[in-house]
Amino acid sequence: MSAADSGFKQNLCVILVRTRNPLNIGAVARAMANFGASQLRLVAPYDLAFREARSAVGAAELLANAEVFPSVAEAVADCTLVIGTTAATNRSVSLPLITLPEAAPQIAAHVGKVALLFGSEKRGLANEDMSYCHWLVRIPTTQSPSMNLAQSVVVVLYELARTWNQSPAVDSEAIPAADLPAKMQSLLRLAEVMHETLEGCDYYSEAAAASAEEQLRRLLLRMKLSEPDSEIVLGMFRQILWKLRANSPE
Amino acid sequence: MSAADSGFKQNLCVILVRTRNPLNIGAVARAMANFGASQLRLVAPYDLAFREARSAVGAAELLANAEVFPSVAEAVADCTLVIGTTAATNRSVSLPLITLPEAAPQIAAHVGKVALLFGSEKRGLANEDMSYCHWLVRIPTTQSPSMNLAQSVVVVLYELARTWNQSPAVDSEAIPAADLPAKMQSLLRLAEVMHETLEGCDYYSEAAAASAEEQLRRLLLRMKLSEPDSEIVLGMFRQILWKLRANSPE
Repeated sequence: MSAADSGFKQNLCVILVRTRNPLNIGAVARAMANFGASQLRLVAPYDLAFREARSAVGAAELLANAEVFPSVAEAVADCTLVIGTTAATNRSVSLPLITLPEAAPQIAAHVGKVALLFGSEKRGLANEDMSYCHWLVRIPTTQSPSMNLAQSVVVVLYELARTWNQSPAVDSEAIPAADLPAKMQSLLRLAEVMHETLEGCDYYSEAAAASAEEQLRRLLLRMKLSEPDSEIVLGMFRQILWKLRANSPE
Repeated sequence: MSAADSGFKQNLCVILVRTRNPLNIGAVARAMANFGASQLRLVAPYDLAFREARSAVGAAELLANAEVFPSVAEAVADCTLVIGTTAATNRSVSLPLITLPEAAPQIAAHVGKVALLFGSEKRGLANEDMSYCHWLVRIPTTQSPSMNLAQSVVVVLYELARTWNQSPAVDSEAIPAADLPAKMQSLLRLAEVMHETLEGCDYYSEAAAASAEEQLRRLLLRMKLSEPDSEIVLGMFRQILWKLRANSPE
């Protein structure tokens, strides 16, 4: 196994969000086995029968090891790059949207765990799911853009495996700790503490409050914080929150 | 004049910090005229006699138009990328340090005004000056690393002009406003308001207080905020500061 293979295997998570049909989960596992991806995560699947799906060799082990999470936040916690997949060519959400061939070299060059999010067969990813994504990627279909779930997974993995194996292996040990990107769990904890602080300061109008946490997450993802910097900013907001409470008139 | 030439001319500022010898300023102006850079800025020069320096054609106009600023902060206010020059191969400050040939394509690809900072003949840039820099660049000298000021300017401009003219012109109009990097004046205003907020929250230990503003600037520069995002974060801190004052027991 080459270093590039091993990076692919260790650093790539395929995350299926609210998948309806267990057969699709089996088909995704098979596609993953074909291209050497091994980490399958499921967010709130509609039907847990997927583990019994008849599967090809390799895919059975993958299905047995698949992890189930109640939320996107928990499924992406240990990742440092989260990419949503979409069939749409433009989105109302202000998130970078690039095509798969453009995305592949950036994904291969990333140091740390990468999450690929695929939405449900019926509706794809919700806006809320996308607020956990650094960017969106779309497969450049030439006709009808909406693809079968497992087929879109296999195309994405094919392109990534192709690019990954051509790319020089990235030695994550050689990268200074100060430059390592923040894990999602660090950013999400920071977003929570910032949100609590800003609420305590009457920052939000009533209209803005509903989408406030989503907006904060998007802001933090755009900042591309390193892990140490995310800890520094978290420390600042914890101190501010402490002071606000200490001063509070009640 | 090609589009690339025009970008070079409009977007590049040479900033000399605390230059001692007016003759060096004249020599820098001549080097700038040679390679088509036109914006010369001086921070606290030791001697204002530079405007009378005898100069070649082109350099005289450049000297006449040179602007004098009392501080680095004011000299870089309208820039969105600030690069310090150094002879050192490693610095105690935690700032990316790259060689000129590696830096040139990144500088040519940058949209917005770029500042190149050159320190005094005697001491180079101070750590405080570097806290306004996104990164540091060094000329890969093969022997003695310390170069004459005007000679280091001419080498940097030669390399940049060479790279800039080979690079496709970047159309800044084509870049969405949300992606434009923050101006230094926006980041410095944000750093001030953050600093005031954190001081009010007893965030700093006595030992840390001295370098606190520098550390904040470095943190904000590492974040690579866009101009709109810097406004959002500024708004957050203004609101927090307002609340802290409103709640303050005195």
